[in-house]
Amino acid sequence: MKILIIHGPNLNMLGKREPDIYGATTLVEINAALTAKAIELGTNVAFFQSNSEGEIVSSIQDAMSKFDGIVINPGAYTHTSVAIRDAILSSGLPVVEVHISNIYKREDFRQKSFVSGVALGVVSGFGVNSYMLGLSGLVDHLNDIENS
Amino acid sequence: MKILIIHGPNLNMLGKREPDIYGATTLVEINAALTAKAIELGTNVAFFQSNSEGEIVSSIQDAMSKFDGIVINPGAYTHTSVAIRDAILSSGLPVVEVHISNIYKREDFRQKSFVSGVALGVVSGFGVNSYMLGLSGLVDHLNDIENS
Amino acid sequence: MKILIIHGPNLNMLGKREPDIYGATTLVEINAALTAKAIELGTNVAFFQSNSEGEIVSSIQDAMSKFDGIVINPGAYTHTSVAIRDAILSSGLPVVEVHISNIYKREDFRQKSFVSGVALGVVSGFGVNSYMLGLSGLVDHLNDIENS
Amino acid sequence: MKILIIHGPNLNMLGKREPDIYGATTLVEINAALTAKAIELGTNVAFFQSNSEGEIVSSIQDAMSKFDGIVINPGAYTHTSVAIRDAILSSGLPVVEVHISNIYKREDFRQKSFVSGVALGVVSGFGVNSYMLGLSGLVDHLNDIENS
Amino acid sequence: MKILIIHGPNLNMLGKREPDIYGATTLVEINAALTAKAIELGTNVAFFQSNSEGEIVSSIQDAMSKFDGIVINPGAYTHTSVAIRDAILSSGLPVVEVHISNIYKREDFRQKSFVSGVALGVVSGFGVNSYMLGLSGLVDHLNDIENS
Amino acid sequence: MKILIIHGPNLNMLGKREPDIYGATTLVEINAALTAKAIELGTNVAFFQSNSEGEIVSSIQDAMSKFDGIVINPGAYTHTSVAIRDAILSSGLPVVEVHISNIYKREDFRQKSFVSGVALGVVSGFGVNSYMLGLSGLVDHLNDIENS
Amino acid sequence: MKILIIHGPNLNMLGKREPDIYGATTLVEINAALTAKAIELGTNVAFFQSNSEGEIVSSIQDAMSKFDGIVINPGAYTHTSVAIRDAILSSGLPVVEVHISNIYKREDFRQKSFVSGVALGVVSGFGVNSYMLGLSGLVDHLNDIENS
Amino acid sequence: MKILIIHGPNLNMLGKREPDIYGATTLVEINAALTAKAIELGTNVAFFQSNSEGEIVSSIQDAMSKFDGIVINPGAYTHTSVAIRDAILSSGLPVVEVHISNIYKREDFRQKSFVSGVALGVVSGFGVNSYMLGLSGLVDHLNDIENS
Amino acid sequence: MKILIIHGPNLNMLGKREPDIYGATTLVEINAALTAKAIELGTNVAFFQSNSEGEIVSSIQDAMSKFDGIVINPGAYTHTSVAIRDAILSSGLPVVEVHISNIYKREDFRQKSFVSGVALGVVSGFGVNSYMLGLSGLVDHLNDIENS
Amino acid sequence: MKILIIHGPNLNMLGKREPDIYGATTLVEINAALTAKAIELGTNVAFFQSNSEGEIVSSIQDAMSKFDGIVINPGAYTHTSVAIRDAILSSGLPVVEVHISNIYKREDFRQKSFVSGVALGVVSGFGVNSYMLGLSGLVDHLNDIENS
Amino acid sequence: MKILIIHGPNLNMLGKREPDIYGATTLVEINAALTAKAIELGTNVAFFQSNSEGEIVSSIQDAMSKFDGIVINPGAYTHTSVAIRDAILSSGLPVVEVHISNIYKREDFRQKSFVSGVALGVVSGFGVNSYMLGLSGLVDHLNDIENS
Amino acid sequence: MKILIIHGPNLNMLGKREPDIYGATTLVEINAALTAKAIELGTNVAFFQSNSEGEIVSSIQDAMSKFDGIVINPGAYTHTSVAIRDAILSSGLPVVEVHISNIYKREDFRQKSFVSGVALGVVSGFGVNSYMLGLSGLVDHLNDIENS
Repeated sequence: MKILIIHGPNLNMLGKREPDIYGATTLVEINAALTAKAIELGTNVAFFQSNSEGEIVSSIQDAMSKFDGIVINPGAYTHTSVAIRDAILSSGLPVVEVHISNIYKREDFRQKSFVSGVALGVVSGFGVNSYMLGLSGLVDHLNDIENS
Repeated sequence: MKILIIHGPNLNMLGKREPDIYGATTLVEINAALTAKAIELGTNVAFFQSNSEGEIVSSIQDAMSKFDGIVINPGAYTHTSVAIRDAILSSGLPVVEVHISNIYKREDFRQKSFVSGVALGVVSGFGVNSYMLGLSGLVDHLNDIENS
Repeated sequence: MKILIIHGPNLNMLGKREPDIYGATTLVEINAALTAKAIELGTNVAFFQSNSEGEIVSSIQDAMSKFDGIVINPGAYTHTSVAIRDAILSSGLPVVEVHISNIYKREDFRQKSFVSGVALGVVSGFGVNSYMLGLSGLVDHLNDIENS
Repeated sequence: MKILIIHGPNLNMLGKREPDIYGATTLVEINAALTAKAIELGTNVAFFQSNSEGEIVSSIQDAMSKFDGIVINPGAYTHTSVAIRDAILSSGLPVVEVHISNIYKREDFRQKSFVSGVALGVVSGFGVNSYMLGLSGLVDHLNDIENS
Repeated sequence: MKILIIHGPNLNMLGKREPDIYGATTLVEINAALTAKAIELGTNVAFFQSNSEGEIVSSIQDAMSKFDGIVINPGAYTHTSVAIRDAILSSGLPVVEVHISNIYKREDFRQKSFVSGVALGVVSGFGVNSYMLGLSGLVDHLNDIENS
Repeated sequence: MKILIIHGPNLNMLGKREPDIYGATTLVEINAALTAKAIELGTNVAFFQSNSEGEIVSSIQDAMSKFDGIVINPGAYTHTSVAIRDAILSSGLPVVEVHISNIYKREDFRQKSFVSGVALGVVSGFGVNSYMLGLSGLVDHLNDIENS
Repeated sequence: MKILIIHGPNLNMLGKREPDIYGATTLVEINAALTAKAIELGTNVAFFQSNSEGEIVSSIQDAMSKFDGIVINPGAYTHTSVAIRDAILSSGLPVVEVHISNIYKREDFRQKSFVSGVALGVVSGFGVNSYMLGLSGLVDHLNDIENS
Repeated sequence: MKILIIHGPNLNMLGKREPDIYGATTLVEINAALTAKAIELGTNVAFFQSNSEGEIVSSIQDAMSKFDGIVINPGAYTHTSVAIRDAILSSGLPVVEVHISNIYKREDFRQKSFVSGVALGVVSGFGVNSYMLGLSGLVDHLNDIENS
Repeated sequence: MKILIIHGPNLNMLGKREPDIYGATTLVEINAALTAKAIELGTNVAFFQSNSEGEIVSSIQDAMSKFDGIVINPGAYTHTSVAIRDAILSSGLPVVEVHISNIYKREDFRQKSFVSGVALGVVSGFGVNSYMLGLSGLVDHLNDIENS
Repeated sequence: MKILIIHGPNLNMLGKREPDIYGATTLVEINAALTAKAIELGTNVAFFQSNSEGEIVSSIQDAMSKFDGIVINPGAYTHTSVAIRDAILSSGLPVVEVHISNIYKREDFRQKSFVSGVALGVVSGFGVNSYMLGLSGLVDHLNDIENS
Repeated sequence: MKILIIHGPNLNMLGKREPDIYGATTLVEINAALTAKAIELGTNVAFFQSNSEGEIVSSIQDAMSKFDGIVINPGAYTHTSVAIRDAILSSGLPVVEVHISNIYKREDFRQKSFVSGVALGVVSGFGVNSYMLGLSGLVDHLNDIENS
Repeated sequence: MKILIIHGPNLNMLGKREPDIYGATTLVEINAALTAKAIELGTNVAFFQSNSEGEIVSSIQDAMSKFDGIVINPGAYTHTSVAIRDAILSSGLPVVEVHISNIYKREDFRQKSFVSGVALGVVSGFGVNSYMLGLSGLVDHLNDIENS
C-alpha cells in the first residue's frame, strides 16, 4: 500500500509563517512525522509540495497508477481550484483533505472547499496532527476495502 | 483524563437507518469500539445520546466540571443550534466535532455548521471511524497541553 | 392499518390562539373529527402533541414499528427542524405534512419547509379540514400500496 | 354548485410523459375519476386544458360568472406566471392549487409558486389523488360557506 | 400585577461563562436584583430558566392565565426559534425581549431575532441592567394600559 | 400621427376587479377617455387588449409600420416577459409604459420591470390618469422630434 | 391650490451637466415652464432647490401647512434617503416623484427608490417634460379629491 | 430522418431588427440555408415560428411522433419558460438549443437558460451559422445512435 | 454628570405625525419628561434636534468635551448614516440608541442600524418611554464606571 | 489559415476518466479527428494541452502572431480563470469555447464561464463532436471575414 | 494650476480620534504638509472640510470654474453618497479619491465606494501619505494632459 | 533598501494589448521608469513577471529574505488568488498593490481583490503612474519605519 501526501501552496513556508495560526513545525518535520506514522500503520508514503495549481493537478493524475490513495492539504487552492477537484475525480483514488488550522474559524472565503465534495473525508483544526489523523483514516479505509 | 462522547438526534437509530449513508453499525457497537479505542489511548469515555437540543446543552454544561474534553456528533443540530454552540463556548472545554458521512457531499443546508466555528477540530466522512479519529485527535491535544 | 397524528408546538393552544389565522376549533375537537374520519376510512389513529422538537423526533422514531404512516403538522418546527426531517427519513414511514393556514400567504420565513422535501405529500390552507384531507391522502396511498 | 378543473401546460401529455414522475394515468382517466368524485361529493365539474398562459388567464376570467370555484394544476406556469395569479385575484373565486408530484422535492425553480399566495389551499405530492383531495377540500369549503 | 421572567439556554451559566461578554454576575444574583426592582416598581416577579426550547414554549403558554406580562432573554433561541415567537403571539401577553450583551456587535447570525418582531420592546447591551430596564418598561406599559 | 394603446392581461377586467387597487372605471371607459384625450392632443389612437404574451408581441411587431408610438400597460407581463421587451426593441418605436396602481407600493416581484429598461418613459400610480399622462408624454415627445 | 416643486441635489447644475443624460435646459428654464404650466392648470407653484438632505426634509415639513401637494425630483437622494421618505409620510401631503432621465435604464443602484413607495405616483424618463406631466397628474388628483 | 426547426418569439423580425446584434439575414433566408444544409447532411427539415409560448409547447409535443429531433432557438423564452423545458422533457426527443448572438455577452437576465439543462447541446454566438452547426451536431448525434 | 439628548430627522414632527406609529406626545413634552427624569436620576440633560446628518455629526463631535454621554434617536439616519457611526466612534463617549417604535416590526430597510454596532445599548419599542429607559441605562452605566 | 486547439486541465486524461460524462475517446484520438476535420475544411491545426493556467495564458499570448484563431476547451479554468479571459482579450484573436459535456446540466459552479463573455461563440454538450463543430464555426467565421 | 482638497465628515477630528486606525496627525498638519507638497509639485492647493453631504456637493459644484482638479477623502460618505458621485460627474473635473486607512481591511460596508467608479484614481492605506500620493498623481495627470 | 516589483499575468503584453484601457507603454518602458524613480527615491528595484500564479507565489516567498518590500500588480489574479494573498501574509513584507486602470470602473468580478485586505496600501487608476506612486508610498513607509 502506497500513499501520496500532497502539500499545496505556501505550505513550504510552515514554521516560518504565521506561527499563531500554523504552529512552529516545519514541513520537513511534518514529513518525518508522517513517515514514522506510516511505518506504524504499515504503509508507505511519498511527498509532493508545489505552489502551482497545474503541478498539483499533474501530481494527482500521475498518482493514479502509482498510489492507493492521497492525503492532500490543498492550502489556498482548497477555496479556488475546480481543476484539483476534477483531477481527484479523474484519478478515481480515495482522497483525504486535511487542514492544519480549523478553516471554519477563519475568513468567509475559506469556508467553501471545492475539494471536500469529492473527498473521502475531511480533517481540520488539529494542527500538524490533522495529517496523522487523515493518514490513519485513509489507511483504515483502504484496509477495510481490502478486507471486505 | 475523561472524555464525554455526545451523540445527537437520530443517532440512536444508527444501523436501522439509511444504511447507504450511515452504514450498518449500531450505536451500541460504536460505543463499544470507542471504549476499546479509549483503553488503547489510555483514557476514559462516557456516553450520552439525546434527541433533545436542550438536554444536549445541559449535558455540555454538566461536562464542565467532570470531563477534560468532548467528542460530539451533533447530528441535525449541527446546522440549526446556536444553543449548542453557546454551551460549548460556555463550557470552556476542547470539543471535537465528528460526522459519519461527509456532510460536504450532501444538501446545501448541511454545509453550514454552527459548531465548527467553536470546535477544536472537525472530522467528517470516515464512517464510524470518524469517532475514533476524533477521539485520537482530542486525546493527542490534551496530552500535548499536559506536556507543554 | 394504524396512523399516528403528530401535532407540533403551540397546536395545543388551538381555539384559544389567533382565531383569525387558525380558527376556533380546539385540538380536542380536531382529534375527535380525525377519529370519526378514521372510522369512515377504515383505519385507526393515535395522537401525540408536544412543544419539544426532541420529543417529536422520538415519537417519529417510536412510530416506526407501531404505525403504518404519520400525519404531521410540524407547526413552527416546519421551518427550523432538520432533526424532524432526519427522523422522518430514518423512520422509513410515509409521512403527510399538513398546515391549517396557507403558509404560502404568510411571512417569508414560513415559506421554507424542512419537512416537505421528505414528505409523501403536503396539504395546506384548508383550515382544520387539512388534517382530514391529509389523512385521506395517506390512507389512499397505503391502500394503493397494499393493493399493488 | 359547479367547479372548473384547469389543467396547465403539458398535462395533456400525462401518461405518455416521464411516468417515473407523473405516473401512467392519462388526462382522460383523471377527468373520469374527477367526474366520479364530483358525483360522490354532490357537485358538478367541467374541464379545461391549455398550453397557453393567456388562454388559462381567460378561462379563469370566464369562470367568474359560471363556476363557484376552481381546482387548478398550473403546471410549469406555477413558477412563472404573475398573470394567472392576477386572474385568480381578479375572479374572486376560491381556487385550490394541486400538483401531482411533490414539487418541494424537485428543482429549486419549482419551489416558488406565484399561485399559492392567492390560493385557498394547496395539495401536492399525492399523485393523481391530489386532484381528488383538492376537489374535496374545495367542496367542503363551499359547503361550509353556504352553511354558515 | 405579576410578571414572569424567562431566562433561555445557557443563562444558568452566567458568571461562570465568558465574563468578558456576559460579566461576573450569576443568575441567582440577577434574580435577586430583579426581585428588589419589582418591589420598587410595586409588582411581583417569578422566574423560569430552561435550556429546552419546548419547555420555554410551554412556560409562555402557561403564563397566559397567570401573569400580566413577560420579560424574556431568549438567549440562543432568539436567533433560531419560530416556536417561541408563535408561543408569544399565542399567549397574547406583552413581552419584553432583553439581552445582556449588545447583540448587534456580535456575529452575523446573532443580528436576526425571531422574537423582536412580536415583542412590545427590546433592550440590549446594558449588561445585567438590561433586565431591570426591560422590567421597568413592561411595568410602565402595564400601568399605562390600566390607567387609560 | 397614430398611437397604439396596448392593454395587457386582466385589464379587460378593470372595473370588475379589485376596485380598491384599480378603481371602478372599465376598460371601455378608459378607451373613451383616451380617445377624447387624443383629440385634444391632435393625434389618433387605436386599442388592443390581450391576455396572451404572444399576441402582445405580435401586436407590437405589427405596430412597426402602422403607428408612430405605443402606450403600453403590460400588466402582469411587466415583471415576467423578456419577449415583450425584445419586441419593443425590435419595433424601434418609442414606447411609454403606464401602470394604474403605483407598482412600487406592491409585492416585491412587482418592483422589477423588463419593459422599463427599453421604454421612453414610465408613468405609475395616477389611476386611470396614468394612461392620459403617458399619452401626453408620448405625443409631446413625437412633436419634439418632428420639430427638431 | 398651491404646489411646492422640490429639486434635489445637483439639479441646480442642469444645462451645464451631462447634457446627453439630462439635456440642455437649465433649472431656471424648467421653473419658468412649470410656472406657465401651472397657470394653464389653474394652480400656483413655488420652488425649492437644495443639495442638502436635511434642508429638503425641512422644506417638506414646512410645506405641510402651506401647500396642497409636492412635486419632487429627489435626484441622488432618491436612492439613499430614508429621511425624505419619512418627511413625506409625516407631511401627509400627496407627493409626485419625477425624474428627467429614465432611471430604470441606468446603474443598478439607481433602480431602488425610497420615495416611490410613499409617493402618489411616479413619472420618469420624459426629460424636462416629466415635471410637467407630474404636475398635471398631481393637479388632476387634487381636483378629483375636491370634486368627490 | 426528420428534424423540426423551431424559431421563438421575434425571430420573424430577423433582418428587420437590431442588425448590429442579429445581422441582416431574414428568417426566410435562414430557412433556405437550413434546407440546403439538410440536403447536404442527408436529412429533412420542417420549420415552425411562433411568438406564443403555448404554441411552441404544443409544437414540441406534436413533434414527438413526427420528428427525430428538434433544433430550437427559443429566443426570449430561453430565459423565462419552464413550460418549454417541460415540453422538451416530455417529448423525449433530442433537442439542440441555438442562439444567433452570444447570449453570454449580453444582459444578466439572458445568462440563465431554462432550456440548456434539458438540451443535448448548445450552440451560441456564430450568427446565423449557429443554426447550421446545431443542425450538424444533431444529425451527427442521430447517426451515432443509429450506428451504435 | 451631563447628558446630551439628540433627536434625529423628523422627530420635530412628533405628535403631528403618524400618531398610530409614534403616539401623540410632542418633542417639547418629551424633553420636559426627560428633564424631570434627569432630575430624578441626579443628572443634567441638554437637547439637540436636527434634520441634517452633518449637523448631527457635528453635535456629537462637540459633545466630546462637554458631555459624559449621549442618548440618541437617530431616526431615519439609523439606517443610512455611516457618518454618525464614525462620529460616535470618534467621540469616545458612551452612546445609547433609542427608538420610539419597535423598528424590528417595520420595513426591512429599518432592520439594519449603523449605530447599534457602536452603541453601549439599544432600547426600542416602548414609545416615548424608550427615551427614559435609555437615559436611565446610560446614567446607571456612568455611575457604575465612576464607582468601579 | 492556422488554428490553435487548446485543451485545458485534466483533458489529457480523456478516455481514462469518468467515461459516463466524457466518453471513451482519448485526446490523441480527438486530435487525429480534428486534423482530419481541418483538412476537410482546408485549414491547419496545432495542439496544446496543459494543466497550468499560466501556461495556457502564455500559449494564447504566443498564438497572437502565429495563428488566425483559437478553439479552446478551458476545462475547469472555464469557471475560475480571469487570467485566461484577459489573455484572450489581449490576443485579439477570435476564440471559440467548446465543452464535451453540457456544462449547463452540471453543478452550479460550472454554470459560470469567464471565457464565454469574450468568445466568438460557444459549443457545449455534443461530446467530442463539440470540437469539430467549434472548429467549423471558427473556420466559417474566418472565411466570412476574408470574403467580406 | 489649482487643486481643491476636500475632507469629508469627521476628518476634522483627525489626531483626536481612533489613533490606531487614523494616526496622530491633525488635519491642520495634513493641510500644512499638502501645502508643502503642492509647492514642491509647482501647484496651488485650497482646503475644504465639512460634515455635511450637501455642503460637499456644493463645494464640488463650485470648484468647477475655480479649480483644475480635486483630491477628496469622502470619509463615511464614500459608502453612502450618490449625491457626491453625481456632483463629481457633474463638475467634469478629474477627481482623486484618497483614504488614510486601507478601507479594504475594514467592515464590509466600507468595501463599497460610490466615488471610485467616477474617480480618476484611488489611493488607500498609506496613512496621511495617501493625500500626498493622490495629489502627486493628480498633478502628474494634469501635466500630462497639458503636455499632450 | 531593496524593492521587488511583481507584474502578474498578461502584463508582459502591455503596449500591445487593449491600449484604450492600458495605454501604449510597454513593460520594458515601465521598468525603465521605475528604475529611474527608484534612483530618485534612493532605493533599488528588481523585476519579476509571470503568467503563473504558482511562480508569483514562489517569488513572494523568495523575496522574504532578499527584499524590504514588494510592489505588485497582480493583474487577473487580484480577483481569484487566495494563494497570493497567503504568500503575502506568509512573507511578512509590506506589499503595495497597484493597478494601471481604475478597477472600480470595470466588470463586477474585478471589484473584489483578495490582495487588498493584506496590502499596506492600494493605488489604482493612474495609468503607468500607479506604479510610481505605489513605489513612492512603499519607500516612504519603509523610511518612516526606519526613522521611528
